[in-house]
Amino acid sequence: MSEGRGEFDLIARYFRPLAGPEGLDLLDDAAVAAPPPDGEHIVVTCDTMVAGVHFLPGDPPDAIGHKILAVNLSDLAAMGARPTHYLLATSFPSVPADDWLAAFVQGLRRLQDEAGVVLIGGDTTRTTGPLTLTLTAFGHVPGGQALRRSGARAGDLVFVSGTIGDAALALHLARDGDTTGLTGNAALFQRLQRPRPRVALGQALVGLASAAMDVSDGLVADLGHIAAASGVGAVVRSDALPLSTEAVALLAEQPALMAQVLTGGDDYELLFTIPPERRAAARAAAQRAQTQIKEIGVVRAEAGVVALDRAGDPVPLSEFGYRHF
Amino acid sequence: MSEGRGEFDLIARYFRPLAGPEGLDLLDDAAVAAPPPDGEHIVVTCDTMVAGVHFLPGDPPDAIGHKILAVNLSDLAAMGARPTHYLLATSFPSVPADDWLAAFVQGLRRLQDEAGVVLIGGDTTRTTGPLTLTLTAFGHVPGGQALRRSGARAGDLVFVSGTIGDAALALHLARDGDTTGLTGNAALFQRLQRPRPRVALGQALVGLASAAMDVSDGLVADLGHIAAASGVGAVVRSDALPLSTEAVALLAEQPALMAQVLTGGDDYELLFTIPPERRAAARAAAQRAQTQIKEIGVVRAEAGVVALDRAGDPVPLSEFGYRHF
Repeated sequence: MSEGRGEFDLIARYFRPLAGPEGLDLLDDAAVAAPPPDGEHIVVTCDTMVAGVHFLPGDPPDAIGHKILAVNLSDLAAMGARPTHYLLATSFPSVPADDWLAAFVQGLRRLQDEAGVVLIGGDTTRTTGPLTLTLTAFGHVPGGQALRRSGARAGDLVFVSGTIGDAALALHLARDGDTTGLTGNAALFQRLQRPRPRVALGQALVGLASAAMDVSDGLVADLGHIAAASGVGAVVRSDALPLSTEAVALLAEQPALMAQVLTGGDDYELLFTIPPERRAAARAAAQRAQTQIKEIGVVRAEAGVVALDRAGDPVPLSEFGYRHF
Repeated sequence: MSEGRGEFDLIARYFRPLAGPEGLDLLDDAAVAAPPPDGEHIVVTCDTMVAGVHFLPGDPPDAIGHKILAVNLSDLAAMGARPTHYLLATSFPSVPADDWLAAFVQGLRRLQDEAGVVLIGGDTTRTTGPLTLTLTAFGHVPGGQALRRSGARAGDLVFVSGTIGDAALALHLARDGDTTGLTGNAALFQRLQRPRPRVALGQALVGLASAAMDVSDGLVADLGHIAAASGVGAVVRSDALPLSTEAVALLAEQPALMAQVLTGGDDYELLFTIPPERRAAARAAAQRAQTQIKEIGVVRAEAGVVALDRAGDPVPLSEFGYRHF
């Protein structure tokens, strides 16, 4: 894993219990992984999180460990892949305390056990900058059946999983320094700090969804990505968005926050399109994956993404897409 | 590749020409790669380089691009793998100049064409710290035949490829601020900045070497890693080390620099052990791979690694293993 870098080797030791047998105890130059089952392809993704850019240095370490794995598993889910392995590269500004490391590893451990993946390698280095984490995650998908962004067609139905906007609202509350709001909105912060990758749903949608991705830049921006890749556009009904109880309460007080819900990122829900004739099959698949999904709009030929309110008027969106804090 | 991060998307565009068809033009959530040929396994490795820790911020950008790919290909070579793909995660402190990016990409491009690999994904983020690069590289190796560190047996011969110590001597010269020495030693700096991964040799050694790794921590430290993993020890003859003309000249002036040659890192040569009955086969394999190799010592049962000089006395080694500058 790491090589002869003194105290940074000690850090690497914390990661060894996360390793499966293919990681060779993280002691060789590289890891060896068995090929996917016959007829399956390999899906691979890589996301970086930088302290102060993608998370706060003071965030709970188990949440940081959870999130760096979760965002990568979410990318695999968006492709319909079954996750198998990961590599983790960490750059530390200083040697963290034992309890920080133990909690960080615990955050990884819980999610890797849940998702059925193991660590097979990585690198541990030091940096003069902030804590930087890069995780590379692998999965398997039936050959030729990976979910892509480019398959949406006019008339397809737009669906999203879970609830939307919670992470953006948490970020909004934190930005305002409204600490009274924080205690009343623990569930929103949970969504921001510990997103749940929709691993089972992604696999269930293989062969059903015409396009898919995960919501990380914000619902409107991400639907824009699908629309652009597919050469189509889409209309979303803001009153159809699946919202958490906490989000509904906040929106009742401040209706203008709907812009945050539509454009804020970090939900890591799956956004996907379903040909109308497969609507029932998609609902059944989601039920098998024990994941709530909701129809929120429709794909149309005209380019661009529009969000309409209950009255059919466009929702004013001051900013599109995710801006990191 | 990147997602809605404005100017950092522009950076990602520079990387797109490096992508093969499997990278889906770097526009999907993840990349899809075909499985390895029948009977082969996947080898994967991941190395991070941080500006100011693993390279100097002012290093030529094409050398930085070359090196982050080279060090990972070197890890694959050490496992005997044939490299196929890579992902690149970059964290930039600010948007680099166009000519910096173009040269960085050019450094990657030349080496990827030489090695026959393509970029299939990655991430582009910003950081408040130094430029940080994490590359994940994949390759294929015949199932069960990856070269490991753990197979060396007493009596095996210790070999190393190319020449040893050039990068450490360049680092030593740079550290002393001896700029007159730099101009006379361009070849040494070339070795430090543009290491040549021994990709062909690694594959040629499959089925022949009992253990292998690449020299990145320093010859003695890395031989120590092989010895420890294999439960053996080794003796190296310092007068048998393959040295460049430049290294020979420097050592003639300052014989004490032999300690740097033995313990300095960053050579990225292959260090491997060969059972005596396969000596001729190993030499023939190296010739087919058009790579010079040299026998420098022997594996013994007694633990630890010792370097002996021409007179048979131990070479005093003030430090073991690589210390990053």
